[in-house]
Amino acid sequence: MSDFSLPIVPRFAEVDAQNVVFNAHYLTWFDEACTGLLDSLAVAYPDLISDGYDIQVVHSEIDFRSGVRWRDAVRVTARATRIGTTSFTLEFTVLSSTGGAEERVAVRGHNIYVVVSTEDWAKRPIPADLRDALSRTVTG
Amino acid sequence: MSDFSLPIVPRFAEVDAQNVVFNAHYLTWFDEACTGLLDSLAVAYPDLISDGYDIQVVHSEIDFRSGVRWRDAVRVTARATRIGTTSFTLEFTVLSSTGGAEERVAVRGHNIYVVVSTEDWAKRPIPADLRDALSRTVTG
Amino acid sequence: MSDFSLPIVPRFAEVDAQNVVFNAHYLTWFDEACTGLLDSLAVAYPDLISDGYDIQVVHSEIDFRSGVRWRDAVRVTARATRIGTTSFTLEFTVLSSTGGAEERVAVRGHNIYVVVSTEDWAKRPIPADLRDALSRTVTG
Amino acid sequence: MSDFSLPIVPRFAEVDAQNVVFNAHYLTWFDEACTGLLDSLAVAYPDLISDGYDIQVVHSEIDFRSGVRWRDAVRVTARATRIGTTSFTLEFTVLSSTGGAEERVAVRGHNIYVVVSTEDWAKRPIPADLRDALSRTVTG
Repeated sequence: MSDFSLPIVPRFAEVDAQNVVFNAHYLTWFDEACTGLLDSLAVAYPDLISDGYDIQVVHSEIDFRSGVRWRDAVRVTARATRIGTTSFTLEFTVLSSTGGAEERVAVRGHNIYVVVSTEDWAKRPIPADLRDALSRTVTG
Repeated sequence: MSDFSLPIVPRFAEVDAQNVVFNAHYLTWFDEACTGLLDSLAVAYPDLISDGYDIQVVHSEIDFRSGVRWRDAVRVTARATRIGTTSFTLEFTVLSSTGGAEERVAVRGHNIYVVVSTEDWAKRPIPADLRDALSRTVTG
Repeated sequence: MSDFSLPIVPRFAEVDAQNVVFNAHYLTWFDEACTGLLDSLAVAYPDLISDGYDIQVVHSEIDFRSGVRWRDAVRVTARATRIGTTSFTLEFTVLSSTGGAEERVAVRGHNIYVVVSTEDWAKRPIPADLRDALSRTVTG
Repeated sequence: MSDFSLPIVPRFAEVDAQNVVFNAHYLTWFDEACTGLLDSLAVAYPDLISDGYDIQVVHSEIDFRSGVRWRDAVRVTARATRIGTTSFTLEFTVLSSTGGAEERVAVRGHNIYVVVSTEDWAKRPIPADLRDALSRTVTG
């Protein structure tokens, strides 16, 4: 199981008039957590690209449980929950702590990614290196 | 049935290095389409607030079918697909046309909104005005 | 003199916890106004690119006079104030009206743009078409 | 002199179709660097607010020297360069390193801030604590 989490400092510009982070920014945080997870697994996204592959998000689901506030201490965990032939699913959990209080699950979601060739943008089987790396993050 | 759609000019700043609009921005567009839909139904969001209500997104699902490019002609349709006691669902479709070609469905998604009181932030039944307005957009 | 102005609907996501549009977004609006101005002059940015030119912002100055609020009626005017050999200056004024009141100058700023070749990214004289078009917007 | 600098991980969502960080985002980075500088000086922004003060950006100037790329190692330095009666100036320098190469100055700019009362939003003399703290960052 992966212990990966990406620390995030919520930006003042991300907080809306309701004093919580605006919902769209969580998808940006998921994107950064995906990059960070791949880096932590030594499967850097730029290497995928130079090998002729790219990954595209085809589906997202997000549950917003409680708002993240400016100056909360935040981290986003990421791990694979499904590895198919040409696609895989990453689950993200935004953990937030206000004023030193215990972490709470603020947001949870997942993205489905498809591996494509940068030549014809058609689906491709997940490269072996990426598959092996992701497998190490799947919880049994 | 609602014919509501909000025209969107994709911003250069929203297009990423893959030359398509970055996924998070669609949630911002959904938010603008929600506001526009309520305006078109004469149930302005500021009026809700001054009546002591607010609406919060508690769940989002998004299907990304094809990328929206800079200078595409874009509009986002919005309509209610479910109206519960304290929550309702709005469905959004991003229709995009490149270089004058026929519109294609680029992105489709929905948000589940919960009505809360601005006094105690607890759930409240959907106010009658809002319920009636949303009902007029539900497809049978 | 140019009469060009671009209507802007301030997005809820652009409004920060101080209930005004966050300062960085004005640069995004300036960018859209630049594109709009060039379009209105029939010098589309994509045509510049296909001719082997690009324009880059090298300097920005912005005066923030009063905050723009959500649901203000906003437009951004744009016109050239200086046309040099390889660079030109566009001035932008954000005019905002709250609740139907008279427009006020909320923000004023300018960007200095340099014309570069997309081949070697070195400076190039402003193409004649672009120069002529910009000249039509300069106030005497 | 202040040694303060804020590490920044450029987000994929901040990189535009020209493969460099879009210009508006530097103002967001400046804002985060301002917050970070004040924190490092033990003059937290929330404390200012609870004391009845706020600070507002009234003027920005930015020189864009070279583009910041995705996965560059970036930090933003911040220090006061002028401390007036009711306003002060912070200078920001974005230092960027690509692929382990030496840091270069990618962007340099400054913001002028005015201290206001949150009661009447009129200008106020800079509070003594803030003045003392900023003074420690001014280069002689």
